[in-house]
Amino acid sequence: MDTERTCLLIIDIQYDFLDASSPLFVRGGPSIISNIEKILNYFRENNQLVIFVKRLHRSDGSDVDKTRIELFQRTGGFLIGGTRGAEIVEAIKPLPSEAVVIKKRWSAFFHTELDLMLRREKIKDLIICGIQTPNCIRATFTDAISLDYDVIVLEDGTASSNLEIQKSNLLDMENIGAKILRTDEVINLLKYQI
Amino acid sequence: MDTERTCLLIIDIQYDFLDASSPLFVRGGPSIISNIEKILNYFRENNQLVIFVKRLHRSDGSDVDKTRIELFQRTGGFLIGGTRGAEIVEAIKPLPSEAVVIKKRWSAFFHTELDLMLRREKIKDLIICGIQTPNCIRATFTDAISLDYDVIVLEDGTASSNLEIQKSNLLDMENIGAKILRTDEVINLLKYQI
Repeated sequence: MDTERTCLLIIDIQYDFLDASSPLFVRGGPSIISNIEKILNYFRENNQLVIFVKRLHRSDGSDVDKTRIELFQRTGGFLIGGTRGAEIVEAIKPLPSEAVVIKKRWSAFFHTELDLMLRREKIKDLIICGIQTPNCIRATFTDAISLDYDVIVLEDGTASSNLEIQKSNLLDMENIGAKILRTDEVINLLKYQI
Repeated sequence: MDTERTCLLIIDIQYDFLDASSPLFVRGGPSIISNIEKILNYFRENNQLVIFVKRLHRSDGSDVDKTRIELFQRTGGFLIGGTRGAEIVEAIKPLPSEAVVIKKRWSAFFHTELDLMLRREKIKDLIICGIQTPNCIRATFTDAISLDYDVIVLEDGTASSNLEIQKSNLLDMENIGAKILRTDEVINLLKYQI
């Protein structure tokens, strides 16, 4: 891993995925925040690139996934720009100097400027964390390796609605080239430039 | 399902995924060919759109996934244009009039003309089959729903290296909007325009 060429991607750590009352609540979500905070702090202290990704929708639902329109309408909507539910949680709130990429679908690369930004910064390695593993994490990972990035997925910095889904998805990603590592392992790799 | 606006996508049914001696052999692969043949025949008899997708690589490996370059070099390569391994199997060989889309990565939409072709034909619904479920099927499905297609994934027309992987991937896809159906169920839906 070339630490100079490594970016930390933090995906969808927004209240609407983390509040137990939200229709999009991911059960494993709240427990991973402290690990993400830990690696984020390491990146900030070492002036390494961090990019936040969030999902935002219009209040009329016109940009919501087709398969979620019914849920959006029935529940009054989610991840609507300007609402608290769409905000990144306080513990890891982006600094004014940190980039936030807005996405509308599962993959952080899908119809976004993310790949262009990573190329500009000559990034080779990505560390992916956030929620949730079978959907946005996996879709982002698939695009990332398709684009020739080397990818680490944080085992304890990603979450699913249950452990079985979490495990099967980490295995599938490992089978096509993801490195699955814990937060402390990655910080050690970065620290000692292994 | 609007049968006029439905396309059958047949993904990666190539010898290098189906020969037991190939480094890319998918154990569940051979058993699904007859189901794919059945639905393909239905589409042909009814003059409905079929698109074949195949993965092709250059013999020097310059367009192979980064995570598979070592395997490619060690085994002498796979899915190389002009070799038997890259061909679609005889039982479902495309007719001269049928389109074949070439891809280099997991998703059939990734840097290909597939979406443009489907739009031109005003396709709304996709039926996805082929190999293998956790990789190319799932990546194609994720892009397809991101692009607002309604997607059926053929339970008995897709395959993985084992049943556990097959099941967990079908479940994850169902959870974000795929309809998981058997070949006979889909043919009935099409036949009776349900």
